Amino acid sequence: MIIRPHLHWFRMLLAWRGSVLPQLLPRLFLIFCISIVAVAAHDHLLPISLNLNTTAPFSLIGIALAVFLGFRNNASYDRWWEARKLWGQLLNESRSLTRQAITLPTRSLPKEEVGELLAALGALPHALRHQLRKSDPREDLAARLPTALFERVIASRYKPATLLLYLGEWVQREAQAGAIDPMAVLAFDRNLNGLSDVIGGCERIVSTPLPFAYSVMIHRTVYFFCASLPFGLVDSIGIFTPVFAVFVAYTFMAHEAIAAQLEEPFGTDDNDLALNTMSAMIEDALRDLRGEPALTLPDRQAENYLFD
Amino acid sequence: MIIRPHLHWFRMLLAWRGSVLPQLLPRLFLIFCISIVAVAAHDHLLPISLNLNTTAPFSLIGIALAVFLGFRNNASYDRWWEARKLWGQLLNESRSLTRQAITLPTRSLPKEEVGELLAALGALPHALRHQLRKSDPREDLAARLPTALFERVIASRYKPATLLLYLGEWVQREAQAGAIDPMAVLAFDRNLNGLSDVIGGCERIVSTPLPFAYSVMIHRTVYFFCASLPFGLVDSIGIFTPVFAVFVAYTFMAHEAIAAQLEEPFGTDDNDLALNTMSAMIEDALRDLRGEPALTLPDRQAENYLFD
Amino acid sequence: MIIRPHLHWFRMLLAWRGSVLPQLLPRLFLIFCISIVAVAAHDHLLPISLNLNTTAPFSLIGIALAVFLGFRNNASYDRWWEARKLWGQLLNESRSLTRQAITLPTRSLPKEEVGELLAALGALPHALRHQLRKSDPREDLAARLPTALFERVIASRYKPATLLLYLGEWVQREAQAGAIDPMAVLAFDRNLNGLSDVIGGCERIVSTPLPFAYSVMIHRTVYFFCASLPFGLVDSIGIFTPVFAVFVAYTFMAHEAIAAQLEEPFGTDDNDLALNTMSAMIEDALRDLRGEPALTLPDRQAENYLFD
Amino acid sequence: MIIRPHLHWFRMLLAWRGSVLPQLLPRLFLIFCISIVAVAAHDHLLPISLNLNTTAPFSLIGIALAVFLGFRNNASYDRWWEARKLWGQLLNESRSLTRQAITLPTRSLPKEEVGELLAALGALPHALRHQLRKSDPREDLAARLPTALFERVIASRYKPATLLLYLGEWVQREAQAGAIDPMAVLAFDRNLNGLSDVIGGCERIVSTPLPFAYSVMIHRTVYFFCASLPFGLVDSIGIFTPVFAVFVAYTFMAHEAIAAQLEEPFGTDDNDLALNTMSAMIEDALRDLRGEPALTLPDRQAENYLFD
Amino acid sequence: MIIRPHLHWFRMLLAWRGSVLPQLLPRLFLIFCISIVAVAAHDHLLPISLNLNTTAPFSLIGIALAVFLGFRNNASYDRWWEARKLWGQLLNESRSLTRQAITLPTRSLPKEEVGELLAALGALPHALRHQLRKSDPREDLAARLPTALFERVIASRYKPATLLLYLGEWVQREAQAGAIDPMAVLAFDRNLNGLSDVIGGCERIVSTPLPFAYSVMIHRTVYFFCASLPFGLVDSIGIFTPVFAVFVAYTFMAHEAIAAQLEEPFGTDDNDLALNTMSAMIEDALRDLRGEPALTLPDRQAENYLFD
Repeated sequence: MIIRPHLHWFRMLLAWRGSVLPQLLPRLFLIFCISIVAVAAHDHLLPISLNLNTTAPFSLIGIALAVFLGFRNNASYDRWWEARKLWGQLLNESRSLTRQAITLPTRSLPKEEVGELLAALGALPHALRHQLRKSDPREDLAARLPTALFERVIASRYKPATLLLYLGEWVQREAQAGAIDPMAVLAFDRNLNGLSDVIGGCERIVSTPLPFAYSVMIHRTVYFFCASLPFGLVDSIGIFTPVFAVFVAYTFMAHEAIAAQLEEPFGTDDNDLALNTMSAMIEDALRDLRGEPALTLPDRQAENYLFD
Repeated sequence: MIIRPHLHWFRMLLAWRGSVLPQLLPRLFLIFCISIVAVAAHDHLLPISLNLNTTAPFSLIGIALAVFLGFRNNASYDRWWEARKLWGQLLNESRSLTRQAITLPTRSLPKEEVGELLAALGALPHALRHQLRKSDPREDLAARLPTALFERVIASRYKPATLLLYLGEWVQREAQAGAIDPMAVLAFDRNLNGLSDVIGGCERIVSTPLPFAYSVMIHRTVYFFCASLPFGLVDSIGIFTPVFAVFVAYTFMAHEAIAAQLEEPFGTDDNDLALNTMSAMIEDALRDLRGEPALTLPDRQAENYLFD
Repeated sequence: MIIRPHLHWFRMLLAWRGSVLPQLLPRLFLIFCISIVAVAAHDHLLPISLNLNTTAPFSLIGIALAVFLGFRNNASYDRWWEARKLWGQLLNESRSLTRQAITLPTRSLPKEEVGELLAALGALPHALRHQLRKSDPREDLAARLPTALFERVIASRYKPATLLLYLGEWVQREAQAGAIDPMAVLAFDRNLNGLSDVIGGCERIVSTPLPFAYSVMIHRTVYFFCASLPFGLVDSIGIFTPVFAVFVAYTFMAHEAIAAQLEEPFGTDDNDLALNTMSAMIEDALRDLRGEPALTLPDRQAENYLFD
Repeated sequence: MIIRPHLHWFRMLLAWRGSVLPQLLPRLFLIFCISIVAVAAHDHLLPISLNLNTTAPFSLIGIALAVFLGFRNNASYDRWWEARKLWGQLLNESRSLTRQAITLPTRSLPKEEVGELLAALGALPHALRHQLRKSDPREDLAARLPTALFERVIASRYKPATLLLYLGEWVQREAQAGAIDPMAVLAFDRNLNGLSDVIGGCERIVSTPLPFAYSVMIHRTVYFFCASLPFGLVDSIGIFTPVFAVFVAYTFMAHEAIAAQLEEPFGTDDNDLALNTMSAMIEDALRDLRGEPALTLPDRQAENYLFD
Repeated sequence: MIIRPHLHWFRMLLAWRGSVLPQLLPRLFLIFCISIVAVAAHDHLLPISLNLNTTAPFSLIGIALAVFLGFRNNASYDRWWEARKLWGQLLNESRSLTRQAITLPTRSLPKEEVGELLAALGALPHALRHQLRKSDPREDLAARLPTALFERVIASRYKPATLLLYLGEWVQREAQAGAIDPMAVLAFDRNLNGLSDVIGGCERIVSTPLPFAYSVMIHRTVYFFCASLPFGLVDSIGIFTPVFAVFVAYTFMAHEAIAAQLEEPFGTDDNDLALNTMSAMIEDALRDLRGEPALTLPDRQAENYLFD
C-alpha cells in the first residue's frame, strides 16, 4: 500500500507514483487518437462522417455509469476496509491473549511457557499472510516456531487454523497443570474465537470476489462510453475534444482501475494492504508487551510507502 | 458462482461465459428491431411519424431510473454478501467447536467421541445447503452420519436445527460424564448459539425476497425506457440510434438481471454462491484440524468456476 | 407480504396483484387528464396559454427528487429489513432456548416441565404480533398458555415482556430445584436478553415512524412535480405527452407508495411482513425440535402469498 | 417528535403542523420577491438586465447540491436513528435488569429491596433526559429516589453515571448478603455495561455535532442557489418563474431544515425525539413487570404528537 | 474541532471561522482570474479564442464528480465518526472498569488501591492522544502515574497497550489477594478487551489513510473541472461567469477540503476531534464517580470551540 505524507494541493495535481495514471497511459493515448480521428472527420478531413452532433445520449449514459461505478467503488472499498479491520482485530486479539497469558494465571508462569504462546501468536500473521497471498511460509515460520510445531503446521493445509488449535492446546495444558482456572479458560476461549473469526473473514474475502458479471458489465460500459465520447463532443467543443475526452476517460477508467485494485485487498498492487509491514508490526507490539527490544520493521519503501 | 482469474482489460471486454450477455441477447435484438423501426419512421420510410425530437424526457427518466436501480443493486448485493458472510461464519463456528472439542475437556476424549461431533459438524453445511436449495439431502447425510442420527435428522422438518440439537446433546453427555466442566459447557453453548444464528439467517434470506412491488416497478421502468428510447434518440444521432439504444439497453437490463440473480444468493445461477464447494471446503477444514488427509473437492468447473 | 415465484421477464411486465399499480390508478388517471389539458392548451384548442416550452426546470427538480426519494426508499427499506431480522432473531433465540432447556440441565427434565417453557416460547411471537398490530391476543394466547399464566399475561400491558419474565422465572425454579447449575443460568440469561432486544426493537420500529416532515415534503414534491410535468413536456413531445407523463408519474408515485408501505413493516399492506405465517413457523420449528408433528401453517394465500 | 396517523394522500399535501413549512415561509417569500424582480428585469420593466438566459449552470449546481444534501440528510438521519436506538436499548437493558433482579437471586428478595433497584432504574431515563437537554432534574429525581440517593446524585456532575454506580453497589450488597451468586453478578454486570454504553452513546451524540464546515458549506450553497435560480429560469418559463422558484426553494430549504433538526435529536424541535414520553414509557414498562398499575403518560399532544 | 452554537440562518451565511473558506481564498481568487480571462477572450478583448460554447461536457463531468466526491465524503466522514465512537467507547469502558473496581470486589478495597487503577485509567486517554498525534506524553503521564509505572510506560513503544497490561496486572494482584473472585476477573477481562479494541481501532485509523490513488484522482478532477469551467460558462451567462465559476469552485473545493480534514480525524485541523477536551472529560467523569471535585477542563477556545 502506498502512503504519502500530506501533499500541498498543487503538488498533488502532479503526483505520479501511487496514482493509477502510469498503468492507464496506453489506454488514454488510444482515446487521444480516437479524438483526433473524430476531429478530422468533423472537419471533413476524412472522407467519412461520424459526428453525432449531440452530447445528450452521453449525458444519459455518463450519469447512469457514474451511479453504477459509484456502487462498485463502494463495494470494493468496503472489502478493502473490512480486510484492514480484520487485520486490526488480529492485532487486538493477539495483544489481549498476551495480556491474558501474563495476568490471568493464578501463579506466574515461567517465562519460557509464555514464550511458547507468544511464538505461535507472532507466527500467526505471517502464516495468514502467506496463505492469503499463496506464497511460501516456510522461511517465516521456521524462524519463529519450535521445530515440532513447525513440522505440524507446515504439514497442514490451513496453517493459521492449525496454529490456533495449538494455542487452544497450550491453554488446555496450563489448565490441566492447574495454572489457569476454568473461568480464565473461558476468557482465553473468547479471544481464540475472535482469532478464528479473523482468519475465516480473510479467507472469505480472498475466495469470493465481486460477482464477475458486475465487473464485466461496468468494464464494458466504461470503455464503450470513453471510446465513443469524442464523436459526441466534437460538434460542440471542436478542437478541445482531445483534452476533454482524455480527461473524462481518465476519470472513469481510473475509478474502475482503483476499484479493481481495492477489490482484492490482499494482493500486491500499489493500493493493496501492506501485509508485510502489518505482520511485523503485530510481532513488534507483542514483544513490546514483554519489554523486548524493537524489531527492525521491513523497509516500508520496499512495500510502496512513499516519502519523497 | 463463476470466478474468473484476473483478465487483461481488453480480454474482459469480450468475456462471454459468466456475464449475463447470453441470456439478454433476444431482448437486445428486440431493442435493435425497434431502433430500426424508429430510424425508418424518422427518415419517412414508414408512413407514420413517431419521432420525439428530443432526449430530454429520457434524461429525466434515465437518471431517476439509475438512482432506483442503484438502490435495488445495493439491496440485492447486501443480501448476497450477507449470505456469504453467514457461510463464512458457519466455517468459523465449526472450527471453533472442533477446537473446543479437542482442547476444552478436562481429560482428552477418545478419538471416536470427538469423531461423533465432527461427523455432525461436517454434515451440517450439506443439510443446510439442501434445505436452502430444496434438494434431497439423503445421499449426503447418509454418507456422513451414523444410522441412528441419520434416521432422526431425515425425519425432522428443519434438519440443520436438529443436527444442532444433537451437538448440544453431545456436549450434555460429555458434561454428565464429567469430561467437560460447566464453564466449558458455557463456551460450547456460545458457539452453538452462533450456529443457530447462521441457520436462521440463511432461512430468513431464502424465505423473504425483496418486496415484490419494487421488483415489478423497476422491471417495468427499465423495459418501457429501453423500448421507447430509440424514438427519442433518432432525431439527434440518426443511423447511430441502433448502436446506442442497444448499448444503453444492455447497461440497464444487465444491471437488473444481475440484481435479480444476487437477490437469491442460494440459487444455482451463474452469480449465486458456490454452496457445493463451500460445504466441501468446511468439511475439509475440519478434517485438517484432526490431521486427516484432504478431501477431493467437487469439480469447481462443474459449479461454474472458469479458468479458460 | 406478497411473494411470487420467479416470473418470466415478460409476464412480470403485466403483474397486477402485489404491485402498487391498482391503488395508484385514480391518481394516474388524474395525471392523464392534466396531460390532455396541456396538449389542448399547447395546440391552441383552449383560450389560455400554459406551456412552459422547456423541460429544463423539470430535469432539475426531477433529479433532486430522485436523490431525495432514494434516501426515503433506503430508510424505509432498512426499517422493513431490520424488522425482518428481528423476527429472524426471535426464531433463533427461541430455538436456542429450546436447545438449552433440553441439553443444559444436569439431569433430564420431565417432558411436561420442558413443555411449560415451550408453551410460553410458542406463545411469544403471537403475543408480539398482536401487540405490534394492536389486535386482540386473547384467542391465540388462550390456546397456548396454561390458565394461570394466561390470566397474568392478559392482565399486563406489555404482554411479550411479561412472557419473558415468566421464562426467567422458569429458569429460576429449575435452578432452585438443582436441575440447572449457575453457569447454565448464565447461558439462559444471555438468550433471554436477546429476546428482550427483539421485543424492544419491534416496539421501537412501531412507535417511531420516519420523521413526519420528511414524508410530507417528499410527498408534496412528488405530486407537484407530476402535476406540472405535462406542461413542460408538451412542447417537445406533443401528443406523446400523456404517455410519458403518466409513465413518469407512475415511477415516482409508485416509489413513494412502496416506501410508505415498507416504512411500517408490521402493518397489513401487500408488502408488509407476513407475521401470521412467521409466528406459526416459529412454533412449528420449536415443535420439530421435540419431534412433534407439523403444524398446519396458515393459508399463505390468505396472507397475500401468490402462486398463480 | 410529531407523529401523525396515516393521512390520505391528498390531505397530506396540505399538512401544516409538523411540516417545516411554517418556519420557512418568510424565506420563501423572499425568494418570491426575487422572482418578481427577475421577471420584471426580463420584461424590460426595470432599467437593468439580469437574466442569465440559461438553466445550464443551475442544473450543474442543483445536481451537485442534491448529492451533497443527500449526504447531509443521511448523516443527520443516522444520528437521529442511532439516538432512538440508544433509548430503545435503555428500555431493553432496564427490562432485563428488572427480570434479573426478580429471577436471578438464589432466594426471592424482599419486595422493598427490588423496589430500591427499580426506583433507580426508573429515575435513570429522567436523569439522562435532563442531562441531554441541560434542564433541571431536581423535581423528577426527587419524586423517584430515596433522599440519600437523591442528594448523592444531585451532587454529582454526571448524574446517570452515578445512578449506574448505585445499581452496581446494589448488586454488590446483595452478593455480599449471599442472595446473588458470583455467576449472576456477571449477568448483572453485562447489562450494567450495556447501560453504560447507552449513556455514553447519548453523551457522544449531544457533544459532537456534524462538522461545522459541512453545515456552513451546504447552507451557503442552498441559499445562493435558491436566490439566483429565478434569473436562470425566467428566460425559459417567464411568468411561471415565481411558482417554480419558490417550489424548488421549498424543496431544498426544507431538506436542509429537517436535516438540521434531526442532527440534534435530543432537542425540542418538532422532529426531535419525544424524550418525555419515552422516559415515562420506560418507567411504565418496568412497573408493568411488577404488576403495578399504569402510569399516566404525559400528554402526547404536549410533546407534539398530532391526532387531528 | 470547532463547535458553534445554533446560528440564525442568515448569520450562518457569513460564518468565517470554522468554515474552510479562509484556506481556499487564494485558490478561489485564481479561479476568479481565469474567469476574467475567459470573459475577455469571449468578448474578443484577447487575440485568442478559447470559449467552448457549451456547458454540456461540464454537466457530464460535474455530475460524475459529484457522485465520486460523494463517495469520498462518505468514506472520510465514516472514518471521523468511527474515531469519535472509539473515543466514546474509551469513556464507556473506563467508567465500567471504575464501577467494577468499586463494586465487584468481595470486600471493599482500600481507597489507595482503587486509586492506582484510576490513575492508570485516567492516564490512558492522554497516552493514546499523544501516540495518535505523535506528540510528547512525558508531561501528561508524569503528572498522573506513580514513578515506577511512569518509567515503565515511557520506556515502552506502545504506551497505551502497556498501561492496559498494567490494568490486567492490577486485577491479577487483587485476585491473588482474594479480593476479586474468578467470575469478577472474567468481567474485568471483558472490559479490558474492549479497551484493547479501542486502542487498536485508533491505531488502525491513524496508520491507514484512504487509498492515495483515490485522493489524487478526485483532487485532479476537481481542479481541472474548476479551472476549465469558466470557458464553458462564458457563452451562456457572459459577465456573470466569474460569480458562478467561483461559486461552483467553492462548492467542490470546499467539499474536498473538508473531506481531507475529516479523513485524518486525530489531527489538529479545525474539524478534527477535540482530543484534548475529550481526554480531560474522561478523567473528569472518572473522578466524578469517586465524588472528587471537577477538573478544570482545557480552554475550549484554545481547541477551536467558537462561542462568538
